[in-house]
Amino acid sequence: MKIINDVKFLIVGLGLIGGSYAQALTDLGYEVGAVTRSQSSIDYAKENGLIAHGTTEVTKEYVEQFDIIIFALYPKVFVEWLQKYQSYIKDGALITDVTGVKGPIVYKIQELLRPELEFIGAHPMAGKEVYGVQNADKTIFRNANYIVTPTEKNTKQAIEACEQLGKILGFKTIARLSPEEHDEMIGFLSQLTHCIAVSLMTCKESEKLVDYTGDSFRDLTRIAKINEDMWCELFLMNKKELLSQMDLFIDKFKELRDSIQDSDTEKIKEIMRTSTKRRKYFDKK
Amino acid sequence: MKIINDVKFLIVGLGLIGGSYAQALTDLGYEVGAVTRSQSSIDYAKENGLIAHGTTEVTKEYVEQFDIIIFALYPKVFVEWLQKYQSYIKDGALITDVTGVKGPIVYKIQELLRPELEFIGAHPMAGKEVYGVQNADKTIFRNANYIVTPTEKNTKQAIEACEQLGKILGFKTIARLSPEEHDEMIGFLSQLTHCIAVSLMTCKESEKLVDYTGDSFRDLTRIAKINEDMWCELFLMNKKELLSQMDLFIDKFKELRDSIQDSDTEKIKEIMRTSTKRRKYFDKK
Repeated sequence: MKIINDVKFLIVGLGLIGGSYAQALTDLGYEVGAVTRSQSSIDYAKENGLIAHGTTEVTKEYVEQFDIIIFALYPKVFVEWLQKYQSYIKDGALITDVTGVKGPIVYKIQELLRPELEFIGAHPMAGKEVYGVQNADKTIFRNANYIVTPTEKNTKQAIEACEQLGKILGFKTIARLSPEEHDEMIGFLSQLTHCIAVSLMTCKESEKLVDYTGDSFRDLTRIAKINEDMWCELFLMNKKELLSQMDLFIDKFKELRDSIQDSDTEKIKEIMRTSTKRRKYFDKK
Repeated sequence: MKIINDVKFLIVGLGLIGGSYAQALTDLGYEVGAVTRSQSSIDYAKENGLIAHGTTEVTKEYVEQFDIIIFALYPKVFVEWLQKYQSYIKDGALITDVTGVKGPIVYKIQELLRPELEFIGAHPMAGKEVYGVQNADKTIFRNANYIVTPTEKNTKQAIEACEQLGKILGFKTIARLSPEEHDEMIGFLSQLTHCIAVSLMTCKESEKLVDYTGDSFRDLTRIAKINEDMWCELFLMNKKELLSQMDLFIDKFKELRDSIQDSDTEKIKEIMRTSTKRRKYFDKK
């Protein structure tokens, strides 16, 4: 199963996703190091065998030993980190990430890096409603999709290495999209759904509703428990795309609303039949 | 566990819910009969031990033997059935139902029944995305809520018997609401959520999206596979309440949309914090 040979991995940012990457790679036999802000995260990850070593201080001596560097930071901090420390990274190293928005990140990073370094964007579509390295769990990748977002600046080797990384991490599907296609897709499938869940959850005081709540409401609001710092940043970075997906949803929702207001039975049923037909595609996979 | 003694149950309408009631009551040792439209449903239910006997023909001889009659029909057919056949039901029998809307049903039924019969409304908040007696499964009640909707016309005995029925069927929570409170609650928790799921599912062609879909979109659209005849009827019967819940949701959704458009970080985060806080109530139960 060891496809990428003799490489040392550095994880920058030991949270839920960074920690889960570390766990998966260590369990595959790789040497994994980490740079993160809090010493307690390093301590936890070492004690629990997620990493071989790690540090809270970014030094050239530590960073230059790694061949593949995975950034699991919030978008803005990620860009700042590379602006400040890219000189510590050795020539030929491959840089990738886990950021949930691509257009505003990928081109910026590729532009700011020195020519000896290559960045290839990736988005592991996996997560949990809990945070921190203490909740790291490589099994979250098992039924999840991994999207690689190459640009014309990327080499064939880097794209393939990044796809191999997704495979060895255990993702079910590896896909390739342009940064723009990625952002449109994620605006719809992930960001819009979070906006819907959050809006629904804020409609009413919920304490008295708990006793009457069936699975429908629970399912629709599972993702309404949300990390506001991360999601606010992601929403605003993908603002144009997200707003257009939100407007599309408002149109469709109003179409159904107005059909109900008009008691237009045929229209309502037609909408429901389309919905039923389209949802069935998701049962097959 | 046998609380209501020496009674014979009649299920009118052997679908998923009627069949699941039949299964639960038969397994508790009660004699359960059924009236339904298709002979194949009767045959299936008999062969699989859900009912002791059943018929597709509504006769006085058959119907008058039962003490508790449970209607698991679509709302309009339910009203028509009682208009046509209530004379077949014996004096003192208790009539209840499983209908998902209460205001437009409960008063109408109580008004049309002769004085020797009592109707008490109930709503088992349980279901599946499949239909028919072949999918009957009494375990769907286990983690579900059962709502009794008495009016001032109901006797204490009937209310208690109806609540006992919910208990012996195995529901987790038994609650009591007025028909109006029920319809407001169900308009929000169940009907609005179905409208959201259906609207989201009809936004885009879904075939090409399947490969990129994570849990969020799947969770939010699980209920988008919908029985259009039943839900269209339920939506229109609860139209006023449903429209007001849909408008409340549109307001909240637009508030979030506009905060994103204005890049109003503080407002977005405040909405998300409220959402997170409210969703936490649902983790406790």
